[in-house]
Amino acid sequence: MPSTQNPSPVITFLSDYGLADDFVGICHGVIAKACPQARVIDVTHGIGRHDVRSGAIVLAEAIAYLPVGVHLAVVDPDVGAQRRAVALRTGDGRRFVGPDNGLLTVAAEAADGIVEAVDIAQSRFRLQPVSATFHGRDIFAPVAAALAGGATLTDAGTPMDAEDLVVLSLPMPEIRDGAVVAHVRYVDRFGNLQLNVGHEDLAQSGLRLGRAATVEPGDGSAHPVHYVRTFADAVPDELLLYEDAQRRLAVAVNHGDAAKRLGLGLDDELRIRPG
Amino acid sequence: MPSTQNPSPVITFLSDYGLADDFVGICHGVIAKACPQARVIDVTHGIGRHDVRSGAIVLAEAIAYLPVGVHLAVVDPDVGAQRRAVALRTGDGRRFVGPDNGLLTVAAEAADGIVEAVDIAQSRFRLQPVSATFHGRDIFAPVAAALAGGATLTDAGTPMDAEDLVVLSLPMPEIRDGAVVAHVRYVDRFGNLQLNVGHEDLAQSGLRLGRAATVEPGDGSAHPVHYVRTFADAVPDELLLYEDAQRRLAVAVNHGDAAKRLGLGLDDELRIRPG
Amino acid sequence: MPSTQNPSPVITFLSDYGLADDFVGICHGVIAKACPQARVIDVTHGIGRHDVRSGAIVLAEAIAYLPVGVHLAVVDPDVGAQRRAVALRTGDGRRFVGPDNGLLTVAAEAADGIVEAVDIAQSRFRLQPVSATFHGRDIFAPVAAALAGGATLTDAGTPMDAEDLVVLSLPMPEIRDGAVVAHVRYVDRFGNLQLNVGHEDLAQSGLRLGRAATVEPGDGSAHPVHYVRTFADAVPDELLLYEDAQRRLAVAVNHGDAAKRLGLGLDDELRIRPG
Repeated sequence: MPSTQNPSPVITFLSDYGLADDFVGICHGVIAKACPQARVIDVTHGIGRHDVRSGAIVLAEAIAYLPVGVHLAVVDPDVGAQRRAVALRTGDGRRFVGPDNGLLTVAAEAADGIVEAVDIAQSRFRLQPVSATFHGRDIFAPVAAALAGGATLTDAGTPMDAEDLVVLSLPMPEIRDGAVVAHVRYVDRFGNLQLNVGHEDLAQSGLRLGRAATVEPGDGSAHPVHYVRTFADAVPDELLLYEDAQRRLAVAVNHGDAAKRLGLGLDDELRIRPG
Repeated sequence: MPSTQNPSPVITFLSDYGLADDFVGICHGVIAKACPQARVIDVTHGIGRHDVRSGAIVLAEAIAYLPVGVHLAVVDPDVGAQRRAVALRTGDGRRFVGPDNGLLTVAAEAADGIVEAVDIAQSRFRLQPVSATFHGRDIFAPVAAALAGGATLTDAGTPMDAEDLVVLSLPMPEIRDGAVVAHVRYVDRFGNLQLNVGHEDLAQSGLRLGRAATVEPGDGSAHPVHYVRTFADAVPDELLLYEDAQRRLAVAVNHGDAAKRLGLGLDDELRIRPG
Repeated sequence: MPSTQNPSPVITFLSDYGLADDFVGICHGVIAKACPQARVIDVTHGIGRHDVRSGAIVLAEAIAYLPVGVHLAVVDPDVGAQRRAVALRTGDGRRFVGPDNGLLTVAAEAADGIVEAVDIAQSRFRLQPVSATFHGRDIFAPVAAALAGGATLTDAGTPMDAEDLVVLSLPMPEIRDGAVVAHVRYVDRFGNLQLNVGHEDLAQSGLRLGRAATVEPGDGSAHPVHYVRTFADAVPDELLLYEDAQRRLAVAVNHGDAAKRLGLGLDDELRIRPG
């Protein structure tokens, strides 16, 4: 069998490290030393610094487009603060490696749920001495590399109860008084607001493509919007409602910033009324 | 033959996605799922948002330095606007995949010209449902991966006439009244102005390395310049003329911004007079 | 032996090119053409423009975490200025390729010292014509690729005396009058100040984890600090002393900028007094 048919194990990597420094490069180096045959796919390193919540959502939305492999993710709310370091195995055969602060669990649920969890703080694969501030290099990357190289979770850490993992509490949408009560799930760098209303929720929402609606950000104001297929169907500066590339309902201002316009941030409530 | 002698197929990738979000990472994931043996080289994802014109020039200037492979490029003038999605084959055996808006054709001409073109909007390799806003993920990346994996253009799309492709209209330089009438081909992030005057055009230009010249940006002003080998040969704040790394005539201000100094942008005319 | 056990040669790549332009992508392309089986690890391309000094430190600190391979690095103090182009071999079997301006030598010392050096300005592997401004593409990347592909240093250039290489002069710390006289070794983008005091120097410094100390930036002022394990052990806006991830003593302001607070930059002296 020619070598090109024998794919390398894949490690995907998401963090808030940015690319201005060498944090990401160092982790790539650590992986290449421990598992030379692994291939690393950078999902993004542009997660807002310390923004575990957004990192969790980006990873969860991405996972369906990533090969089954080892999914390394590092975002911490504060440098050097205490929290478990964990590796998880999910129902579809993926492995996740990162901090136990909710970053991994939304994606793990989307990957058929967690079937095994280990604490890797004392993993025999870690680099010693473990620094207080760079667990990506000292714990997470070497453990991810070991798993990609064939190690099992129990080789890599101490079994723990998946029920003890930190889980993010994300609000749920509902229909109330004829309005969709949605919440902001993600704000992108253009100020577009992704809502926690999925494609399958839309049928019963009363919202119809091509029709008008009203959005109420909760400050007493009400804003007319059009529910369009894409930005190209709206005029500049117009507030619009659309189904985004993740098939979620989203609010944007064409060539503008919807987060600013409506004064909304993560998890804030937004009511959408047909008509 | 050892495996290291058996190179993987190469996909190069250029876009205006930036690296702050996960757009690029998602496309890498889609490619790795569809063609695990492909190797992806990121040319740049820093093309100015929606700047098809600059993306086309950067791709065209880069192509000679890229291995023959599949060249994926995604820059659109507006999110979700209508345009064809295409794959092209060129005389030197390269394949190009991207939107039909002129982004690919300058590079394709430099790669010995287009010998086959297909429309891939309905490609059997696309991910369904195709979103309105993320064709990179849903059409371009999976088609590029299929081509890298061995598919032919006709496997990937519907044959079309290459004459129907959108072509950028780029101005041509000329010699008039003893002056070189050049145009701005590319502005880099330092405000350096690359002109549409190539190495082979210089011989007949009357311009000589080490000599003085005058540039006229068309607003009635005239500015003395020195034609130097490199920035190190000019004093700070001095306007200089030089042959850049693409062997094209360029104008810069040493430690300054020539685009601002001369008030010039893409395709603007600049007359250069020897002496 | 399956192909996944046969790792590709590794080239690591550090520069001040940034990722907004295609400089890095072009070099990747040049490498892939010349040595298709090489794997490139980007250490970082975010070194401050022209900042040879910081590039040298980042490379030196990273080297222990990078696989033995070819280490390509490009930072120049001025575009197109004269300096040698070199390749070095070190005692631990690494090869370094880059400009002879001090960028490589700190890392090379950390890699068991230079055992062979060649001048590669006229290397038979260079791309011709060599441009005045993009030696990364025309000299450094193709030579790095040739070395990764099996060429020796003498295949790639002309032997030179390692004693003739440009060496950065870095200040050394000392204990004087009961104070640690340290110097700023690196300033990161958050304004954290890494000092030239390593883990092994700390024992005799009189500084003790958990204790107070005083820092004197040399302008007559004196600032109380706490020597803590990590940022999480300090209150916001507090000046703190800690051992960083490179096991060097560092000064930071929790959620603030220590470089600004103390008015210090690269190589500036800082006295630290226990108690």
